[in-house]
Amino acid sequence: MNRDISILIAGGDMRQIYCARRLSGDMKIGLAGFDDEFIPMDMLGSRADISAKGCYDCAVLPVVPLNGSDMLSTPCSRTGLRPEYIRDMLRPGGLILAGKADDRLRRLFPENELLEYMSREELCLKNAVPTAEGAVQAALEELPVTLNGMRVLIVGMGRIGTALAAILKGFGADITAAVRNERGAAKARLAGIKSVYTDHIRAEYGLVFNTVPGLVFGRDKLAEFGSRTLFIDLASKPGGIDFEAARELGIKTVWALGLPGRTAPVTAGEMIAETVIEMLSERSDIP
Amino acid sequence: MNRDISILIAGGDMRQIYCARRLSGDMKIGLAGFDDEFIPMDMLGSRADISAKGCYDCAVLPVVPLNGSDMLSTPCSRTGLRPEYIRDMLRPGGLILAGKADDRLRRLFPENELLEYMSREELCLKNAVPTAEGAVQAALEELPVTLNGMRVLIVGMGRIGTALAAILKGFGADITAAVRNERGAAKARLAGIKSVYTDHIRAEYGLVFNTVPGLVFGRDKLAEFGSRTLFIDLASKPGGIDFEAARELGIKTVWALGLPGRTAPVTAGEMIAETVIEMLSERSDIP
Amino acid sequence: MNRDISILIAGGDMRQIYCARRLSGDMKIGLAGFDDEFIPMDMLGSRADISAKGCYDCAVLPVVPLNGSDMLSTPCSRTGLRPEYIRDMLRPGGLILAGKADDRLRRLFPENELLEYMSREELCLKNAVPTAEGAVQAALEELPVTLNGMRVLIVGMGRIGTALAAILKGFGADITAAVRNERGAAKARLAGIKSVYTDHIRAEYGLVFNTVPGLVFGRDKLAEFGSRTLFIDLASKPGGIDFEAARELGIKTVWALGLPGRTAPVTAGEMIAETVIEMLSERSDIP
Amino acid sequence: MNRDISILIAGGDMRQIYCARRLSGDMKIGLAGFDDEFIPMDMLGSRADISAKGCYDCAVLPVVPLNGSDMLSTPCSRTGLRPEYIRDMLRPGGLILAGKADDRLRRLFPENELLEYMSREELCLKNAVPTAEGAVQAALEELPVTLNGMRVLIVGMGRIGTALAAILKGFGADITAAVRNERGAAKARLAGIKSVYTDHIRAEYGLVFNTVPGLVFGRDKLAEFGSRTLFIDLASKPGGIDFEAARELGIKTVWALGLPGRTAPVTAGEMIAETVIEMLSERSDIP
Repeated sequence: MNRDISILIAGGDMRQIYCARRLSGDMKIGLAGFDDEFIPMDMLGSRADISAKGCYDCAVLPVVPLNGSDMLSTPCSRTGLRPEYIRDMLRPGGLILAGKADDRLRRLFPENELLEYMSREELCLKNAVPTAEGAVQAALEELPVTLNGMRVLIVGMGRIGTALAAILKGFGADITAAVRNERGAAKARLAGIKSVYTDHIRAEYGLVFNTVPGLVFGRDKLAEFGSRTLFIDLASKPGGIDFEAARELGIKTVWALGLPGRTAPVTAGEMIAETVIEMLSERSDIP
Repeated sequence: MNRDISILIAGGDMRQIYCARRLSGDMKIGLAGFDDEFIPMDMLGSRADISAKGCYDCAVLPVVPLNGSDMLSTPCSRTGLRPEYIRDMLRPGGLILAGKADDRLRRLFPENELLEYMSREELCLKNAVPTAEGAVQAALEELPVTLNGMRVLIVGMGRIGTALAAILKGFGADITAAVRNERGAAKARLAGIKSVYTDHIRAEYGLVFNTVPGLVFGRDKLAEFGSRTLFIDLASKPGGIDFEAARELGIKTVWALGLPGRTAPVTAGEMIAETVIEMLSERSDIP
Repeated sequence: MNRDISILIAGGDMRQIYCARRLSGDMKIGLAGFDDEFIPMDMLGSRADISAKGCYDCAVLPVVPLNGSDMLSTPCSRTGLRPEYIRDMLRPGGLILAGKADDRLRRLFPENELLEYMSREELCLKNAVPTAEGAVQAALEELPVTLNGMRVLIVGMGRIGTALAAILKGFGADITAAVRNERGAAKARLAGIKSVYTDHIRAEYGLVFNTVPGLVFGRDKLAEFGSRTLFIDLASKPGGIDFEAARELGIKTVWALGLPGRTAPVTAGEMIAETVIEMLSERSDIP
Repeated sequence: MNRDISILIAGGDMRQIYCARRLSGDMKIGLAGFDDEFIPMDMLGSRADISAKGCYDCAVLPVVPLNGSDMLSTPCSRTGLRPEYIRDMLRPGGLILAGKADDRLRRLFPENELLEYMSREELCLKNAVPTAEGAVQAALEELPVTLNGMRVLIVGMGRIGTALAAILKGFGADITAAVRNERGAAKARLAGIKSVYTDHIRAEYGLVFNTVPGLVFGRDKLAEFGSRTLFIDLASKPGGIDFEAARELGIKTVWALGLPGRTAPVTAGEMIAETVIEMLSERSDIP
């Protein structure tokens, strides 16, 4: 990669800072949207330079780029970061990489090509690892018993379910996967665990990880389980658990979103950097 | 499933007999292309009845349906099985399920709908398990050393590579995956093993499993490894190893094709049966 | 077991309450040294009854029975618990079970037989599980990176080291055991991991678990590692790390004592109960 | 180690040849009791030299040193090897290392100190690895189904049982340990598997590994299981299975003795060599 390429890392949580650190080995970096107290000492010199206005080839925006008021999401800064700033700093037609790019974002940057790094399969695969580790950490923190010997249900045998199965096997948990079809059952077999069809789940687990977005645990199903079971939901909104009902039934739930950024920001940031490098290397227009 | 449906299991190896046994719980079965000595006692009564001519709803053909002379593949019979026989036994327009259906097969059964059970993803996923177990069995048989502590390379992190990784981790092998891109590297990470790019493989492994079809180990690469390494190729023709060169270099290779049928015929047959049931249940024309 | 046997659970942390709950299925229980707010609702009826004075067959004291001023250790009570109370409640010659019984304890109960439940091998084996889980939880909490792919050193391949190895393998960590002799190396091999002799440890690990009591990581060795490595010490006092030097060198250390009681009190309490039942069942003098 | 020490490797199977090869890096080697066709080309020069009569410091005898007629056990030679030969080749008072040394052996070598390398704990621990791998290989060869998903019973959680559990977990088997006390149950928990008391074993397993020497599976218990279960016995004579009854009941059994030497002779031989080196290094009388 041409070391003369320059990238603006604008907004986001600690992941973006570690992403920037990793990128700084291969290209020129400018950090924006981070108060100094969040920037590691050795990266203070990488703050974006306003004199480089109009010079950045590319901007890397957060995983969830915008907050509710069309400003960049900047949890590591007391001041806001406006889209205009990014437009000003980029060279005309500069590329924008964001975790997800919805219509709102596209309207804010009509002149720029937008690419989504979170739609890259390799990043989703890699992200499953810190997500699963974070989910297991949550279980260890919330449970007064060992995972060893515990009956655990994993709903969904996609990437995260598969990663969870591997980790929980090491703990000596007694694991079952809830699946929706023979394909899911085959994946459970490959992971070396038992499986049950989702509509035949019985209330016999002390710990349930949900990884599928649709509602799996409604009020009636939750009532069967009762307060002895911990539910950890890893699915994006609206999640697979009726949280309202769970609260009323006294059932403990953890809705674990954005785990990679919270429990393993260095690894998660480096994964984003690796994907950014891959995405840029596939383009002929990047010097 | 309607228990009145009748299926002709015609030709194939022991897998097809165990497939038939499993199906016999759900439907009427007729076995053809198996000499009596291969048929378990309790299934002798399920031999196809010539008086049922024109009555079978469906025929299940072998994974590789035809031999070189356009006869059904019948390794468990001294006499041949001609396509005409199957056409005669099926009801008009009866369905045919074969592992793979090429043009040759289609020309032999122009009046019948042909479906391929080996193109079903759930069967490919399930088959990875007996394939990986058979490959590990081959390694145990061929090697005068333990897998424990051995440096093992798995080329390709698809289904079979992933299944191999899980098993070999249990043995305490020191495993590396050879991958072609970041997606493969991410899959190795998910499987909890190291990875290396395929074009950077170094000759430092005592055991190599190849799972990808293109040539990975040509003469020069094999010469680097030398006769201390065992190569097990699981890829379909032409395989990933230059076997000719390997022989000349005194390098031990195992080309392990059709493992599920050889090392775990009961499991492999039941997997085919499960897929057949699934495929029939998706059809509205099956009673 | 005779259900008429009565046991006084006196002092200790939450483990002892869960131990009591488990014992309450098999015998009569009296709780002392716990303020009401720590006692689960369904066990409030099991508080020791002063009218049962002189009637208890046996007392179960905490893992570490005494505090610095010769009172029972009662972290779940604002008021103290004096040895006299226990002497009064026990029948003459009643049995006392404590985690460890030192001379100080023996002098306080000269008329009673004292047995140590923590010297039972089965309890030490069982305790290794919550200890290892707690140690991994600490690592997950302290590290900003994933355990997946991390180079981890486990010093000592006793029970806890072996339990750690099994869990960390599930995470896909790259694990090495530091051992002192061929016996340790053989245990590492059995656990499916690499080993290195303790005096040849190199500073190449991001995470170090110490399980052996003698000093392994002195100032010089720590300086080699530097602040990039997290040290978790599971050995009882004085531990295997020069904590003073680590602090001066800016190296992060966690001294994780009493993990079972803190991270999995229910499991740890039930393990004590199982051992108490086993110890009582071996005695002919217990009714 | 002084490279001038000379060792006579006398008799035994292929293990002893690989033991000799490994030792040849550290000391002078003489091979006796092997016909040339069994000796690898590069070791033909290491055949014992009759002119070195009376000069060998030490003799390494086989794991089971004697055959029924008081000759050395020499399965790799058509001619016998008499004890006198060894006495002649050793220097006066030379040391003898044998796998096991019984009274018969001691009577044949009254002038020599005899040490047993198979009583060294590190070698027993190490040997558990090739033993477990060989047992799993036998299961893979005998079973027409996959280990994945199979209910497996391991009787005994000593070294071999523990090694088996680790390997079988990788296969995705559903494993239970049969144990005799809480210590065994604790070891199963540490290995991350379920346990059942030996006298409560139910006939619900497709595969049983026995590792304990006393009779566990008598005629009545075997009859409960029936011919659907494969029994693999790893215990030394008389083993834990009533083989006579099993044969009559049509139950398949494998009595797998001496597995390390058969399935992984190189690894097993190197393990003996490592132990021999260790034993010699502990002695002050060896130069």
